[in-house]
Amino acid sequence: MAETIIKVDLSKSAYDNDKIHNRWHPDIPMVEMVKPGDDFKIECVDWTGGQISNNDSADDVRDVDLSQVHFLSGPVGVEGAEPGDLLEVDILDIGTFEESEWGFNGFFSKQNGGGFLTEHFPEAQKSIWDFNGMFTKSRHVPNVEFAGLIHPGLIGCLPSRDMLDEWNRREKGLVDTDPQRVPELATLPYGDTAHMGRMKGDAAKAAAAEGARTVPPREHGGNCDIKDLSRGAKVYFPVYVKDAGLSVGDLHFSQGDGEITFCGAIEMAGWIHLRVNLIKDGMKKYGVKNPIFKPSPIAPKYDDYLIFEGISVDEEGKQHYLDVHIAYRQACLNAIEYMTKFGYSRAQAYTILGVAPVQGHISGVVDIPNACATLWLPTDIFDFDMQPNASGPTKMVDSSVADVPLSPDK
Amino acid sequence: MAETIIKVDLSKSAYDNDKIHNRWHPDIPMVEMVKPGDDFKIECVDWTGGQISNNDSADDVRDVDLSQVHFLSGPVGVEGAEPGDLLEVDILDIGTFEESEWGFNGFFSKQNGGGFLTEHFPEAQKSIWDFNGMFTKSRHVPNVEFAGLIHPGLIGCLPSRDMLDEWNRREKGLVDTDPQRVPELATLPYGDTAHMGRMKGDAAKAAAAEGARTVPPREHGGNCDIKDLSRGAKVYFPVYVKDAGLSVGDLHFSQGDGEITFCGAIEMAGWIHLRVNLIKDGMKKYGVKNPIFKPSPIAPKYDDYLIFEGISVDEEGKQHYLDVHIAYRQACLNAIEYMTKFGYSRAQAYTILGVAPVQGHISGVVDIPNACATLWLPTDIFDFDMQPNASGPTKMVDSSVADVPLSPDK
Amino acid sequence: MAETIIKVDLSKSAYDNDKIHNRWHPDIPMVEMVKPGDDFKIECVDWTGGQISNNDSADDVRDVDLSQVHFLSGPVGVEGAEPGDLLEVDILDIGTFEESEWGFNGFFSKQNGGGFLTEHFPEAQKSIWDFNGMFTKSRHVPNVEFAGLIHPGLIGCLPSRDMLDEWNRREKGLVDTDPQRVPELATLPYGDTAHMGRMKGDAAKAAAAEGARTVPPREHGGNCDIKDLSRGAKVYFPVYVKDAGLSVGDLHFSQGDGEITFCGAIEMAGWIHLRVNLIKDGMKKYGVKNPIFKPSPIAPKYDDYLIFEGISVDEEGKQHYLDVHIAYRQACLNAIEYMTKFGYSRAQAYTILGVAPVQGHISGVVDIPNACATLWLPTDIFDFDMQPNASGPTKMVDSSVADVPLSPDK
Amino acid sequence: MAETIIKVDLSKSAYDNDKIHNRWHPDIPMVEMVKPGDDFKIECVDWTGGQISNNDSADDVRDVDLSQVHFLSGPVGVEGAEPGDLLEVDILDIGTFEESEWGFNGFFSKQNGGGFLTEHFPEAQKSIWDFNGMFTKSRHVPNVEFAGLIHPGLIGCLPSRDMLDEWNRREKGLVDTDPQRVPELATLPYGDTAHMGRMKGDAAKAAAAEGARTVPPREHGGNCDIKDLSRGAKVYFPVYVKDAGLSVGDLHFSQGDGEITFCGAIEMAGWIHLRVNLIKDGMKKYGVKNPIFKPSPIAPKYDDYLIFEGISVDEEGKQHYLDVHIAYRQACLNAIEYMTKFGYSRAQAYTILGVAPVQGHISGVVDIPNACATLWLPTDIFDFDMQPNASGPTKMVDSSVADVPLSPDK
Repeated sequence: MAETIIKVDLSKSAYDNDKIHNRWHPDIPMVEMVKPGDDFKIECVDWTGGQISNNDSADDVRDVDLSQVHFLSGPVGVEGAEPGDLLEVDILDIGTFEESEWGFNGFFSKQNGGGFLTEHFPEAQKSIWDFNGMFTKSRHVPNVEFAGLIHPGLIGCLPSRDMLDEWNRREKGLVDTDPQRVPELATLPYGDTAHMGRMKGDAAKAAAAEGARTVPPREHGGNCDIKDLSRGAKVYFPVYVKDAGLSVGDLHFSQGDGEITFCGAIEMAGWIHLRVNLIKDGMKKYGVKNPIFKPSPIAPKYDDYLIFEGISVDEEGKQHYLDVHIAYRQACLNAIEYMTKFGYSRAQAYTILGVAPVQGHISGVVDIPNACATLWLPTDIFDFDMQPNASGPTKMVDSSVADVPLSPDK
Repeated sequence: MAETIIKVDLSKSAYDNDKIHNRWHPDIPMVEMVKPGDDFKIECVDWTGGQISNNDSADDVRDVDLSQVHFLSGPVGVEGAEPGDLLEVDILDIGTFEESEWGFNGFFSKQNGGGFLTEHFPEAQKSIWDFNGMFTKSRHVPNVEFAGLIHPGLIGCLPSRDMLDEWNRREKGLVDTDPQRVPELATLPYGDTAHMGRMKGDAAKAAAAEGARTVPPREHGGNCDIKDLSRGAKVYFPVYVKDAGLSVGDLHFSQGDGEITFCGAIEMAGWIHLRVNLIKDGMKKYGVKNPIFKPSPIAPKYDDYLIFEGISVDEEGKQHYLDVHIAYRQACLNAIEYMTKFGYSRAQAYTILGVAPVQGHISGVVDIPNACATLWLPTDIFDFDMQPNASGPTKMVDSSVADVPLSPDK
Repeated sequence: MAETIIKVDLSKSAYDNDKIHNRWHPDIPMVEMVKPGDDFKIECVDWTGGQISNNDSADDVRDVDLSQVHFLSGPVGVEGAEPGDLLEVDILDIGTFEESEWGFNGFFSKQNGGGFLTEHFPEAQKSIWDFNGMFTKSRHVPNVEFAGLIHPGLIGCLPSRDMLDEWNRREKGLVDTDPQRVPELATLPYGDTAHMGRMKGDAAKAAAAEGARTVPPREHGGNCDIKDLSRGAKVYFPVYVKDAGLSVGDLHFSQGDGEITFCGAIEMAGWIHLRVNLIKDGMKKYGVKNPIFKPSPIAPKYDDYLIFEGISVDEEGKQHYLDVHIAYRQACLNAIEYMTKFGYSRAQAYTILGVAPVQGHISGVVDIPNACATLWLPTDIFDFDMQPNASGPTKMVDSSVADVPLSPDK
Repeated sequence: MAETIIKVDLSKSAYDNDKIHNRWHPDIPMVEMVKPGDDFKIECVDWTGGQISNNDSADDVRDVDLSQVHFLSGPVGVEGAEPGDLLEVDILDIGTFEESEWGFNGFFSKQNGGGFLTEHFPEAQKSIWDFNGMFTKSRHVPNVEFAGLIHPGLIGCLPSRDMLDEWNRREKGLVDTDPQRVPELATLPYGDTAHMGRMKGDAAKAAAAEGARTVPPREHGGNCDIKDLSRGAKVYFPVYVKDAGLSVGDLHFSQGDGEITFCGAIEMAGWIHLRVNLIKDGMKKYGVKNPIFKPSPIAPKYDDYLIFEGISVDEEGKQHYLDVHIAYRQACLNAIEYMTKFGYSRAQAYTILGVAPVQGHISGVVDIPNACATLWLPTDIFDFDMQPNASGPTKMVDSSVADVPLSPDK
């Protein structure tokens, strides 16, 4: 029986748990040491540290303090790990807590976080998803139920000092191009809400002032939000500091490619069961800079798709040059429009794209000037047939179900 | 037995076949009429109209006349089709010609076309792929063999007059932002090499001067280069003109997501077997603007992957804002670097990304400032085990095989 | 959060839990009532009720009291269910107990139970399998690790009085054709070790004397040991008595088609999470006599196979007429022989066929006189490449691992 | 371009083509020689040699001369092959002839061949299936269309003299147990209709008198009728004579596990594209007695199933001992009954089981006295939803379509 080496108490603040941290910094002390070959469990709070409640108001999503995220469990040290190694991590399982069999998805207000379609959904909205064993459904989004492709949104090793400096340099460079922008172009270090784990006193304060925020994915992996990096996957992480320092958090019950609603996936608290091994000097041996991984043999199979195309011409008809971001946005908007024909509200349709195992493919990136992206919508998650036919769509969606709660900006 | 309604002769110029055209224009006359429910075969020349030969020199790739592409077979009229309908197309099969059991892949010179990694591969290179039944392998890329995910790179209906005007307007707008750029930002109408099918005389000349080039994918589909729109797929195309006017070409024996080498896929001549049906007024009924489709039940299964991540920090360490294009480029470069550890040249590795059924996923598009893209490399196409292990990679690649031929710019 | 309506205590005898029974009889009282639409959890002891221990001796397998099996949890009543209905059961999840993260597989002695290859493996042997999250491996069978295709070996509704009588009639008829046979041809009612749930006194004694044993699958489902009736599956059970009376037990962490080692799968204690609904009069509406089901979207993917053929000529070269049982036995023996070439003992190879997700297909049943059966061995469960090549097999199996413990007949 | 080394002329008798034979004998001369590494095409007549026509009468099925079958193309010699080797065969592709884009399925009369459910379908019936690219549908079986899992029903190498003697000995032994039975227990040598390829005169006559019939699968493979040994598969055949002598025929456009209708699959003429290699002394190296194979990466995906169970209690309620044959028959009868609820005739439903890619699994073979078999019916081949729901089945089947033609015994 695997030992749980990090425990959390959902009734207490994440700041009171010194095996949790919310910034990346090379000096955060290891909270536990394990050996290559060991397997162990780690408990995690949800990414916001409990800011979002299981109710029918989106006020908490609107008012969320994003400077606190993400609360990570760790770092866990691996004996013998040295910079340049690859840390092989088997994700043996991920699960929920019995007392917390639900998760949330939301759209942030454009004033506070935004999201992929924030121009179309500028105000805060929230849906709650109940877990029934391996499946989930929502009281806010009718006629869909699906199995969770459970995964950690955020996992990776501590950066080295050089890497941290590089991150801060380049991200500040970007912000400096438009410092007043809302939302901001990048999230720079912010000491006030930093939780530096077991660092204490002035050292903690100094580290907090330069600790990298956890929002973006970076070379070490981090907040990749890759839905297929799910339980059963095998991942190879670059190691940058002695003992590696593996941290993990931001567990998702399910998510589509892109995590397009930002708040984002079906977010949950829970536990993850890992096994670690080392490939000595693996970064050089295999030429690895970013993590690489093998997908799980246990991913839910929703492989009948209806596929929507999008090109890099924006909503106003303006032509962009090979812009996959815009092309994917068009594909998403096309899918939303399609779903409304069966009775979904636009917010419900957008939510489905965020939480269901949709695929987003980069289909064409060379046919100037249009990039082509495709959004793959799994049809088997719906309890009705949503494919085109000669007689046209029937409104099958249960209109008695409440729409996704919305809280206007204050 | 299905009738072949359009035939081609590979020994003659595509310009001499009036059932072929290479521009989009609403007035190109239908070359054949079919009825809803009919199935029929159409033959196609390769996208360049035979400019590339089965030999070991990349001179023809370097010197290709890209203003001629793509040669399309059609347009085929469908009785009863009207603007606003959806044309349902079943791709029943695609095949090669007995006398032409090979295809090509190449990188264009940065001076003449370029490609996704043109900064890294600025000169023309070419590989030849032999077809052995449903499989292919190359004398220029050792130790890989795989089944073809055969598909048309380009298929769609004729645009309306309004749509054509809109295309020309927006693409010219983009070019005007940097008219001297090499490669150009978009391919504008160019009458000299236009082939307007059965249009004659002054009408043809006038139409050629405004006919849209076939390079980019657009609302009607067109040059989407979507590998999963393969034989067995069912596609719904918007109809813009009376009788629809379906044209098809640019057949690919296989291609990865993105068609990243531009010249591009394993390009081939061949035939396609289609069946058509109509959903009257389907664009409005289903809210469809771009084509939608269902993937084939017969796609080759290469579903054991090694997955590479990339983020939107470019090769010089510069931070970009949620740029999926750059993130995917990094994922591709990471995969190329990895493959070289087993003995591949960089050009061979790049070729594999272009021709094998690799997937490109938009994994994260909201975690500012980094987009995260993933490149999924199928491991079963290699005849050796190319996955990481503790002892490091072995150079398994047959070094006696010739590298991908290169022709320097003149 | 789903309620656990039946709990078990692994430290106590299953006979002391009146929500457990080990015979089929229409009069066994419901232990809990649920409503259509409800979901709930049920705990189960292992099929033997704890007779087998986590150690390295097969004595307990040799000495097992098979008259006690299988201990089932239930029956659970469903409000409104009537004979002729179909009971729709969603298997939402199945899991292990934290204090019992292991299971067992064994071969029974030919003197006490036997098994599919009992002529080849006549003595008791046992292997222990540790669970690591969703994966399992064994200290007795090296170089294999795989994800569990977790399923209940035994699930179904109480029979009616008429159905019970019919079962007893036909099975006694078979035994009467060779009453002295070892092993016996069928397991007839046996009151001494019967556990009749909440039946008391003389009624319990009378019912025990006629209650059907749980060994064979029958019209109601029961001990089908179908590996694909796994978590995530949706099953439709015929209802024969008022309130249906659903019972379940014999949980398996993994098993191959046929459960060929009899003791049999990787047997475990654990819990199952179910949801029930009714199709009124469904047996007649759909012409259903035996259960039907839809497989899970969450089954582990081990779909690269090496396939072995067998025909209905037995080990002595005798020709049998379209006998699939013999053909499958030959396919299994062929697979065992093959695996020994890589260093496995025959008992280890036989164990793999019993516990891994092997498929057994009825490939040809009309080509007189030979039936043809195929055994599909998943290659990805091995940590080495076990496919044929020109240089021949290498002994990759770790010979330092103990063989499957054997206990000779006393 | 691969060479076609054996050609057929569908307008001529198979007896007039000396590259065809219809018996197994070690002395049949090689008709072509190839080298290891070569790929080549072979044309094949249908298994009956053209006895069945594309019309709406089952007279030809009723009156078929089964002593003529199966007409095989070959034997092809492989340079360097010796007894004890394994012949590795890649099935690179299989296709139809342009002039023969159809196939047939039938039930033989119980008086002349019979079949798996001959007691239920004792008279000759026939359905014709049209090929539309990779798909097929029938004018006799409405509302189904599916992609072909194309495969050779029969492929294998020539037996040695010893092996031939052994086959004749054991099969005669079986027939001798009930020589008057109709249908016969096995098909013994029969010289009158033998086609011994290039053997001439007395030698041919002598060989014909002892040449093994092609009906049953045997150690060498032969008439295995394994649907998954399809195009794209890699097969390893035992070699028994110098130069191996590979023959192939009985091409199927599609078939379910068991080939349960006997006449049987969707039978067709066509061509097969093969590549051969050798594993010297492979039989001993790998302990191989019967062929082994790896399934194709290109098999059509119809993987949403409705699964029917059957146990070894026969139609009269008689209990049989672990008889998988009877259990599978019950599963098939259950599926037929189910399909009739949607409007299919029993003959149409039986036909679907014979021709569609249904799976037949040996689910339980140890739970005395009942074997359990499962019939997996792919739901995506139907153009309506045929799954259970609370409101019961709707008769969706197009009743204007003709039933499967039947010809009563004369």
